[in-house]
Amino acid sequence: MLGNIGTYTYTIDAYLTDFRGKATLPMIGGFMLQAATRHAEERGFGYSCMVSKQRVWVLTRMNIQLSGYPDNDTQIKLHTWVSDVNKLFTERCFAFEDQNGNYFGYARSLWASIDIQTRRATNVLELEGMTDFISDKECPIDSAGKIVPAKDSELADSFIVKYSDIDINKHLNSMKYIEHFVDIFPLELYQKKEIKGFEINYITEGKYASELSIFKKEISDNIYSLDMRHDDKAICVARVTWK
Amino acid sequence: MLGNIGTYTYTIDAYLTDFRGKATLPMIGGFMLQAATRHAEERGFGYSCMVSKQRVWVLTRMNIQLSGYPDNDTQIKLHTWVSDVNKLFTERCFAFEDQNGNYFGYARSLWASIDIQTRRATNVLELEGMTDFISDKECPIDSAGKIVPAKDSELADSFIVKYSDIDINKHLNSMKYIEHFVDIFPLELYQKKEIKGFEINYITEGKYASELSIFKKEISDNIYSLDMRHDDKAICVARVTWK
Repeated sequence: MLGNIGTYTYTIDAYLTDFRGKATLPMIGGFMLQAATRHAEERGFGYSCMVSKQRVWVLTRMNIQLSGYPDNDTQIKLHTWVSDVNKLFTERCFAFEDQNGNYFGYARSLWASIDIQTRRATNVLELEGMTDFISDKECPIDSAGKIVPAKDSELADSFIVKYSDIDINKHLNSMKYIEHFVDIFPLELYQKKEIKGFEINYITEGKYASELSIFKKEISDNIYSLDMRHDDKAICVARVTWK
Repeated sequence: MLGNIGTYTYTIDAYLTDFRGKATLPMIGGFMLQAATRHAEERGFGYSCMVSKQRVWVLTRMNIQLSGYPDNDTQIKLHTWVSDVNKLFTERCFAFEDQNGNYFGYARSLWASIDIQTRRATNVLELEGMTDFISDKECPIDSAGKIVPAKDSELADSFIVKYSDIDINKHLNSMKYIEHFVDIFPLELYQKKEIKGFEINYITEGKYASELSIFKKEISDNIYSLDMRHDDKAICVARVTWK
């Protein structure tokens, strides 16, 4: 029988790392998506199962806290488990272990289950047996909370949503939000510091061919509020902590 | 003892596929990079080994021919092997196998070895023992040849090279060239057809913060010539065949 905690190994390939030869936040986010998908699939709650029930998982919030980024040509282990299930959301946790067995970070994420046609939330508790997989393994960071976008933030960049940006749900891929967010910071900052905290709230879908703008404000030393908008409608809010 | 052919398994994760629920060309390119890196690493010619000799591998040309794209939640096997080694280049081939054991494509790639400091080509034959790994396994497509950019092509898009675009060599990541190229085609084309042939010549490095422009011309039915330029200097040329 499968345990409640899934452990998956990923390699930090040299030619897919950033200029520092280190894993990137979107890369780690991609591993998280892969591990979540695999963990759910193995336990009967993966994409195919959900589609057969006319549903898909939608990532709603995430809180990622990292003490550093693994080097190229190393392997990491991602441990993931479901920590809570309620009507609206399931909470999934992650622990990141480097190849020396040291933990370099944790994450918590909230997922909603929406109806494929209506795009409206469905009751997660209706997914029979899902609560059986809840684990009480410790995840020593806060749950992914609600982020209020900063006032008076300034336009940092804008982009058109393209083919490579959209996922199987036909909206901006959860990891592409992160990629567009991390890209607004200058390379000099990556040379001196690292993003140690990344919190995100996905609000509504970024659609193909629409123009999205990113607004930025340094709300306190090393802490930035970022938000993405389309025609003044909030698409996504994030808080980035550099150290 | 390791054989000359490396076989690696990759999963087409639902939430990382395109809107059709199928693998994307940049995703397949990423798997190729991962398999190439792994195959080389296992045989003593990977990134770390090369860096210890003050060298890095640079992807120069690629010819990818696919009969289709694998679906989400399936696994593919990538077979890769070195088919030729000469002073200037090593040729690496790929065969793509779906989870039913059917081959859905092949690729050939040319790699140069450059000096980390001078960025100039070094003699690949100096890498002792590398020729021992040459395999005569068949790869039923043409070698990646030289592509001449079309005349009178039109500006299709332009972009600034950002943090997420650059790799450990501090130039535009080989797969990001592909991502920027595939993004210039409208979604309607992806709904009706597929990219069945993708050939690329990497000419010079796309640098951080520089603006790159993409020029496009349909040179014959379903065949497009694409090229990337910076200040009228050719960065990269590609030929894309839709079917």
